[in-house]
Amino acid sequence: MIDQIGPNYIGFQTSQLGNSFSTYNPKELKDNQYRLYTATEDEINNAAELAEKAFYAYAELSGFRRAAFLEAIATEMEAIKEDIIKVYCSESGLPEGRANGELGRTCFQLRSYANHVRKEEHLNLKIDTADEERQPMPKPDLRKLSIPIGPIAVFGSSNFPLAYSTAGGDTASALAAGCTVVLKAHPMHAATSSLVALAILKAAKLTEMPEGVFSHLNSNTHQEGQLLVSHPAIKGVGFTGSLKGGRALFDLASKRKTPIPVFAEMGSMNPVIILPKAVENKVKWTTSIAASMALAAGQFCTNPGLLILFKDENSDAFISDLTKSLAETVDSCMLHPSIFENFQKNKAKLLNQKGVQLLSGTSTANTLENHINGEKVLAKVSAKTFIKNPELHEEVFGVFSLIIELEDTEDLFNLICSLEGQLTGSILGEEFEFKAFEREIKMLAHKVGRIIFNGVPTGVEVCESMLHGGPYPSTTDPRYTAVGVDSIQRWLRPLSYQNCPESLLPEALYNENNPMKMRRVNSKFNNESIV
Amino acid sequence: MIDQIGPNYIGFQTSQLGNSFSTYNPKELKDNQYRLYTATEDEINNAAELAEKAFYAYAELSGFRRAAFLEAIATEMEAIKEDIIKVYCSESGLPEGRANGELGRTCFQLRSYANHVRKEEHLNLKIDTADEERQPMPKPDLRKLSIPIGPIAVFGSSNFPLAYSTAGGDTASALAAGCTVVLKAHPMHAATSSLVALAILKAAKLTEMPEGVFSHLNSNTHQEGQLLVSHPAIKGVGFTGSLKGGRALFDLASKRKTPIPVFAEMGSMNPVIILPKAVENKVKWTTSIAASMALAAGQFCTNPGLLILFKDENSDAFISDLTKSLAETVDSCMLHPSIFENFQKNKAKLLNQKGVQLLSGTSTANTLENHINGEKVLAKVSAKTFIKNPELHEEVFGVFSLIIELEDTEDLFNLICSLEGQLTGSILGEEFEFKAFEREIKMLAHKVGRIIFNGVPTGVEVCESMLHGGPYPSTTDPRYTAVGVDSIQRWLRPLSYQNCPESLLPEALYNENNPMKMRRVNSKFNNESIV
Repeated sequence: MIDQIGPNYIGFQTSQLGNSFSTYNPKELKDNQYRLYTATEDEINNAAELAEKAFYAYAELSGFRRAAFLEAIATEMEAIKEDIIKVYCSESGLPEGRANGELGRTCFQLRSYANHVRKEEHLNLKIDTADEERQPMPKPDLRKLSIPIGPIAVFGSSNFPLAYSTAGGDTASALAAGCTVVLKAHPMHAATSSLVALAILKAAKLTEMPEGVFSHLNSNTHQEGQLLVSHPAIKGVGFTGSLKGGRALFDLASKRKTPIPVFAEMGSMNPVIILPKAVENKVKWTTSIAASMALAAGQFCTNPGLLILFKDENSDAFISDLTKSLAETVDSCMLHPSIFENFQKNKAKLLNQKGVQLLSGTSTANTLENHINGEKVLAKVSAKTFIKNPELHEEVFGVFSLIIELEDTEDLFNLICSLEGQLTGSILGEEFEFKAFEREIKMLAHKVGRIIFNGVPTGVEVCESMLHGGPYPSTTDPRYTAVGVDSIQRWLRPLSYQNCPESLLPEALYNENNPMKMRRVNSKFNNESIV
Repeated sequence: MIDQIGPNYIGFQTSQLGNSFSTYNPKELKDNQYRLYTATEDEINNAAELAEKAFYAYAELSGFRRAAFLEAIATEMEAIKEDIIKVYCSESGLPEGRANGELGRTCFQLRSYANHVRKEEHLNLKIDTADEERQPMPKPDLRKLSIPIGPIAVFGSSNFPLAYSTAGGDTASALAAGCTVVLKAHPMHAATSSLVALAILKAAKLTEMPEGVFSHLNSNTHQEGQLLVSHPAIKGVGFTGSLKGGRALFDLASKRKTPIPVFAEMGSMNPVIILPKAVENKVKWTTSIAASMALAAGQFCTNPGLLILFKDENSDAFISDLTKSLAETVDSCMLHPSIFENFQKNKAKLLNQKGVQLLSGTSTANTLENHINGEKVLAKVSAKTFIKNPELHEEVFGVFSLIIELEDTEDLFNLICSLEGQLTGSILGEEFEFKAFEREIKMLAHKVGRIIFNGVPTGVEVCESMLHGGPYPSTTDPRYTAVGVDSIQRWLRPLSYQNCPESLLPEALYNENNPMKMRRVNSKFNNESIV
C-alpha cells in the first residue's frame, strides 16, 4: 500500500495537481521518502461537491449499513497494520507501543460507534400521538428523530495521528451519524493519513458506500483547510489542535454566509489540585503525576499543566520528590522540531514572568539539538501571582507544569474562579477533604468538562459517560464531547414529522416498535409499540 | 401593578438612570401613557454581574425547587392577567382573544417545563461502572449528567409579546435548565414586558430564589442588547426575530474573546407544496391557507410565504379561489407602523423583480394610512424564475405569499434544492402522491426543521416531539429547538465525574436510583439501581 501514498483521494479517484512536499522523521532529523501532493482549489471544490452529492445517498442508509462500513474500516486498518505502524513511527517519532495502542483505540472507537448506530441508539426518538378531540384545536401527531447535518470537514490532529485524525473520533462519529467526510490530513503525518484513507476507501467499496462518502486531501499550508471550511457544501467542522488554529477555523465558519457548527477541541491546562493528605502521602502520587506529565513528551490534550497545592510542612518534600520523579521518566522527542521550537518559545515566555521559579529544565530557549531527548520543565509560582497575570494562564504544549502554591482556602477558591475553561480538573486527597472543599470543587465543576477524583488527567476512556470537551477555550462548544458515542450527536439535528403517513416515516418512528427501541412516547420512556 | 412600570429591574431592585421612552399604540396611532427608562451601561453590567453571582446558587437548586419557581411565575402572571392583557393590546394592536391565547400558551409552557425538570428528565444521565480487572488498565467509573451553562441573555421578540418574550420559551427553558436570565425587553411592548417581569420577580421572592435569578432591562436602540451580549458574565443568548437582528447578535457573540452559543430563531418562508390532488380539491385548502397567511397580519415565524403548485388544468381555479379567500379574511393592523413600513418596502422590492405577477394587493409601497387595516399580498412567479433570482428568496414579514408555478417534477426538485433553511415545509395531497414525490420530500426534509403533511405551517404545538428550528437562516443552530422541553437542552452542557465518591455526586448519579429515573447504565437504558 505504501506505493499508493502521494495523491489526494477524491472519492474513489486519485488526483495530484498541486505542489509536492515530504514528511519529516523527527527522530532521525531527516525527510521521509514519501512525497505528497497538496490539494488545489479545484481539488478541494471537487471533494466538497462530491461529499454533498454522496451525502443524500449516504444519509438514507440504515444504521446497519453504516455500522458495516465502520467495522470494515477497522478491519482494513488492521489488515495493513504493519505498514501503518511503520509509517506512523517514521512521521511522529512516537514509539511502536504507542502506535499499536493508538491503532487499537481507533479500531475500538470505530466498532463502538458502529455498535451504537447499528442499534440506532443515536436517533433520540420522540413521539407525541394525535388527539383529534382536543379543544380548542385538535392535537397533531408529531414524531421526531435525529438526522445527519451534511458533509463534515475533519482536520487531522498533530498529536494523535490515528485516534484523532483520518479514521479517528471525528471521522468515525461523523460517518456514524450519516454525514460524509472530507478529511484534511495533518501535514506532519500525511503519509500515515494516506494509508488510513486507503483503508477507509477500500472499506467503502467493499460495503458499497456511495462514492464521495470519504475524500482525503493533503496540505502543507493553512490555505487548503480555509478553502474547505469556506465551501458552501460543508456543513460542519471537526478539529483537534491548538487554540490559535481552532479559533481561526471557528471564526471562518462563523463568518460564512451560512455559518456552520465547529467543534474544535483546543487548549487546556488540566489543573490538578493536590490536597494536603495527598501531599503528605507523596509516594502515592509523585510518580504517577510525573508519568502523566511526561507521557508522549507532554503532547496530550489532557497533560497536567497546573499542579495546585497548599504550602505546608509537607509541600517542599512533595515538590522535591516530584522533581526527582520527573527526571526519572523516559526521555522522548517531540512530534516535530517545529513543535519543540514552539515549546521552547512558549516556555521561555512563561518562565520569564515575574514570580515564576524554575525547578527543572532551562529558562532560556533550548537548542534544536535537544529536540530528540526532549526537555522536562517544572516551575513554581504563588496563587496570587498566577491569578493576576493572564500570561501565566496560557498552555505550554510539551512537558511543562506550573506548580501553584496556595496560602489558604481563599487562594484556592480565587484561583479556581480565575481559570478559563478546561477539559479536565483533578482532585487528589481523602474523602473527608473533598467534603471540606465542596465549595471549591463545585466551582471547579463549572470550569471543566470532566472532574477526576484521585487520578491524573491523561487517559481518556472511550465510553458513553465520557465527556471530552469543556468550556472555551478547551473547546468551541461546551455542549458536545469529542470522545464516546455521544460525539455522534455533534453531527445530528432533529427533524419533526407532523401528521406523516406511516408509509413515509422512518421505520424507527412507526407505531410498531420492532426491535424494541427505547423511545419517548407522550413524554414517557418506553420500548413498546403504540396501539 | 401598572404604576410600577418604568424602571429596569436589576434583581429585586429598581433602577432608572437612562433616557425615557414611550411605547406606541399601533391601532390608535398614538403614544401609550407608559414611560420606560433605557438601561445604561452601568445598569447592564450590574444586571449581568448579579446574574453571574446568582447563577452559582441557582444552578445548585434541585429540579423540584426550580419547578416551583416556574409554576409560581405562571400563577403570578395569571393573577395580573387583566393588566397584562390590557397593556398587551395597547402595545401590539393584537386582539384580546389572541392575547388571552398567548398568555395561556406561555403559562402552559412554564408548567410543562416545570414538570419536566421536577422529574429531572432533562439531565441525560449516563453511567459506566468501573472494572478494576480490565487489562491493560483498570476501567474508571464515569458518570455524566447535564449542568446549566451560565447566565443567559434573552431578547423579547416583536411578534410574541408573551410566548416568545419576557417569560416566554427562551426564559422558561433557561430558568428550567438552571441558568439565570437577563431579559432585554422588546421596545415595542416594554410595558407588557415590565408587568410580566414583575410577576417573575414576585414568584422569585415567593419561592426564595437568589436575587439576580432574573433581571429586566429596557432599551430603545440596539446598543443595550449589544452591551449585554458582549458582557463576559453572559454565557448564552436566546433571540427570536429578524435575520438581520439575529445575525448581528450571532456575529457579536462569535467574535467575543470567549465565544458563546446563540440560539436565534430568524427568517423562514415556510414553503407549502400543493400537490395536484390538493389543487383539484381546492375547497378543502384555499380557506385554510388564506387563514394561515392572514393570521395576526402575517406576523408569524411560520407564516406560509411560498405556495408551490404544478401549472395544470386546475391550478388557475385554485389560485383564483385562494385570492378570493384571502380577500375575505379579517383585516388587521400590524404590530407597529415601522413594521408596516418595512413590509411595504420589502414587498415593493420583491414585486418589482422580473417575472413576478401581482394577484392581490398593490405593487407600490402603500401609505401608512393603510397600516391599521393591513394589506394582503399574493403574487405569482415561475419556478425557473424563482430559482435563479436570490432576491425572490427573501422573507417578506407580513401577509405576503408568492405562488410558484411548476412545469414538471424536475422544476419541483430543483426548486427544493434551491431553498435556504426553513422552519417548516408542508405538503398537501394524497398518500399515493406523497409516495410518487418521495425523492422531493426527502430533499425537503434536509431543508427544514419540521415537515407537515396535509396541514398549514402556522400552529406550533408545545410538546416534546416538536422541532421549532431548522437549518440557517431559519436559526443559527439546526441542532436545537425553541419550542418544547427539548429547548431546555440549549442551555445545558454535560459534565463527567470520574471515580467520584458517592457523597460528592449529584443524587441522580447515585447507585441507588430512587425515584426510578431512566438512565443509560453501561450503554443500556434502565431505571434500576446499580447493585
